[in-house]
Amino acid sequence: MYRDPVSSFLPQPSRDAAIRPLRVGMIGIGTVGSGTFRVLARNQAVIAARAGRGIEVTMVAARNLARAQEIVGEGVALTADPMQIATDPDVDVVVEVAGGTGPARDWVLAAIAHGKHVVTANKALLAVHGPEIFAAASAQGVAVMYEGAVAVSIPIVKALREGLTANRIEWVAGIVNGTTNFILSKMRDEGLDFADALAQAQALGYAEADPAFDIEGVDAAHKTALLAANAFGMPVRFADAQVEGITALQRIDVACAEQLGFRVKLLGVARRRSNEGEDGVELRVQPALVPATHLLAQVNGSMNGIMVKADAAGVTMYYGAGAGSEQTASAVIADLVDVARLDGTHAGQRVPHTGFHAHAVRELPVLPRAAVRSAHYLRVPVQAATDIAAVADLLAAQRLPVRQLVLANGPADATPQVLVLTESALQSAVDLALHALQASPVVAGPVIALRVETLED
Amino acid sequence: MYRDPVSSFLPQPSRDAAIRPLRVGMIGIGTVGSGTFRVLARNQAVIAARAGRGIEVTMVAARNLARAQEIVGEGVALTADPMQIATDPDVDVVVEVAGGTGPARDWVLAAIAHGKHVVTANKALLAVHGPEIFAAASAQGVAVMYEGAVAVSIPIVKALREGLTANRIEWVAGIVNGTTNFILSKMRDEGLDFADALAQAQALGYAEADPAFDIEGVDAAHKTALLAANAFGMPVRFADAQVEGITALQRIDVACAEQLGFRVKLLGVARRRSNEGEDGVELRVQPALVPATHLLAQVNGSMNGIMVKADAAGVTMYYGAGAGSEQTASAVIADLVDVARLDGTHAGQRVPHTGFHAHAVRELPVLPRAAVRSAHYLRVPVQAATDIAAVADLLAAQRLPVRQLVLANGPADATPQVLVLTESALQSAVDLALHALQASPVVAGPVIALRVETLED
Repeated sequence: MYRDPVSSFLPQPSRDAAIRPLRVGMIGIGTVGSGTFRVLARNQAVIAARAGRGIEVTMVAARNLARAQEIVGEGVALTADPMQIATDPDVDVVVEVAGGTGPARDWVLAAIAHGKHVVTANKALLAVHGPEIFAAASAQGVAVMYEGAVAVSIPIVKALREGLTANRIEWVAGIVNGTTNFILSKMRDEGLDFADALAQAQALGYAEADPAFDIEGVDAAHKTALLAANAFGMPVRFADAQVEGITALQRIDVACAEQLGFRVKLLGVARRRSNEGEDGVELRVQPALVPATHLLAQVNGSMNGIMVKADAAGVTMYYGAGAGSEQTASAVIADLVDVARLDGTHAGQRVPHTGFHAHAVRELPVLPRAAVRSAHYLRVPVQAATDIAAVADLLAAQRLPVRQLVLANGPADATPQVLVLTESALQSAVDLALHALQASPVVAGPVIALRVETLED
Repeated sequence: MYRDPVSSFLPQPSRDAAIRPLRVGMIGIGTVGSGTFRVLARNQAVIAARAGRGIEVTMVAARNLARAQEIVGEGVALTADPMQIATDPDVDVVVEVAGGTGPARDWVLAAIAHGKHVVTANKALLAVHGPEIFAAASAQGVAVMYEGAVAVSIPIVKALREGLTANRIEWVAGIVNGTTNFILSKMRDEGLDFADALAQAQALGYAEADPAFDIEGVDAAHKTALLAANAFGMPVRFADAQVEGITALQRIDVACAEQLGFRVKLLGVARRRSNEGEDGVELRVQPALVPATHLLAQVNGSMNGIMVKADAAGVTMYYGAGAGSEQTASAVIADLVDVARLDGTHAGQRVPHTGFHAHAVRELPVLPRAAVRSAHYLRVPVQAATDIAAVADLLAAQRLPVRQLVLANGPADATPQVLVLTESALQSAVDLALHALQASPVVAGPVIALRVETLED
């Protein structure tokens, strides 16, 4: 095994430690689980120096026991039954990295019922069953921690729950899915169609064989719902999120966005609205135009980046890997160290599950699509270049305020395209204008609309 | 007072809370202190919802009591004697935001001796007296917290001490001084000399009347020494840091760096070296060239940005305001919430002061300047453009590996300048080459050398 260079100053951490090691039972030993096991072993000395005690995986549940044996070696109990880990009295913390929702919910609830803390990297589980799981954990006084479920290695849950506690959060906007960001970067850099970029991502291991959860925006929506809960003190409301993936995104729009000084990113946005008549939260995942000079536009490949606007801190940004075995393990182990740094009695109470105490969590309505407000990019195919005037007239008649109106660069023999940047407007107003445009005789094909996120206020 | 919109769901937080409010005594009510007071008042409901109890400033020490009275209004005890706050039995936490080192040390040590937690934004204090203060706090079982002392609102201490605990940190490189970053941005964007950019920064309030601590790199070195302690488990070793400011930086080098695809940033670098013969830490603050396409190069104006390379997480970056009253208050209050979330007994023990338990902190030698290794930018004024060959020959004879050698763009009548990018090399080898260059008859003036930080490995 790789010998940690700091081990020299901690001769025998497990034996010398005043407190016995934290005993971890791990459900699942796939990509994240094996990475967690590997990093815990490699860095055991430095982790013990930080945690004040050792952290040892004592039991692992896996479907393929032979393969699990190869990964964990001797000295770790193996079982094919995750419930055995959830209920074993010699396990202090259950690490759930098996994925999925139904069975994982049962294991996690059983672990909580048996007084165990839970660390999970399973965003789907928490997006769907979060409120139930957090309530059960609060009642039992145990912690459910999930840093690895939101932005891989980036400590964004910690930043929201603990680092920005002084603030009213105004919005969170993030690139929280590495697969789609890799695809979008390919589409831009190499002028690829979505399908070709997806195929490349799959060939390089950046997209799964069944990429639906990623490319349809579901994974990003899971994470955005968790971010919103931590930002605004609302329950996890994934089911109410507006979710749009990148499967319909055309390369012409990536190029036209570029012409206007923007890049297309799949953004998860959670924004508090408290103006008259729209008190609530925008919760949505959509491909959106971001100013090319903006830091978030520089988040390329499979990296993630999350920007937070808060009333006292102003804008802060967090950036890091958006995929990877050890990268996710970094977050899972940080949660384990957090648990290890407290004695059992207090671990559950220190930080509330979404940063707000249970009595303070309240429903904030997720605003319906029509009530969401933002600037828009429109691409309007027209019969002739001179129809730009007709498009301008039509938008004025619809009272949709326009910031910029320009012809797309492109081959002279192609259909002329009018590109429009609108001012911020209600989605309902944009929809009316789109309807009118589509009905106009000067319009030569489907009008495309994408949100523009200026990320300024 | 501004009414916090979330207060509606927390009818009377202080009365309903199961635990009494945390009582804060504040030493200093200047920029940071008044911001802290203002944000605590404005966001009291949301802060209580997160902390599980109220946080109330009950006593303030100030030199100008009349001015303090204007800021805090009624209901807060005022004193001209900070020691009264440090020793008052009705104060739970002392917030030290007065600045300075000598008297602040005495106040903080007195507060610790009286069993109080301390929150401070005073980097100079901790850079100079950190080891003594942390040892006293550990002995008393109280916490000394200092998120606001390192990167204003960016929760970088939390990221290093808690978010990245799984990792061996390889390096930390940060833009941690807003004043100098503002000046460097002005020099680049407007082609200004250092003196003119400094004057603009002073006129706009981004630099103090006496800017020495900022422009000479001392403030950045305070912060970098704190980052190194948290990254590597070593004591705070500010006195050993290599510190160079930006006062000698010439605008021609900002322009030449640009020609080569780099930007000049004042970087604080803490890098673990464990190769043969150089086991230790590079700890240094210097103007350095950063690739222009790199995220850290996009940190402009008075913003701060810190990049961390860790063995499991890979690269993560943290970005936010590098100055400001409420921006710093955000971090001070986050520390207060951390204290409030624990009962008194456990607050001191949860997270060790620099992330490593006291018995695991060990001296790591700060490497002497000669043993520091990096790539370099050299600007060599020569007699004639054709002397580029002589420069190349001379560097080859000195065995300094060169990556690029090019003539600077510039007016035809100006002294020709040979620009050199070296491969990574020991400072001692670079110094020898510089000496040889300076002695060469083809060289027409002082040779300039700046570090290049590729931030890649």
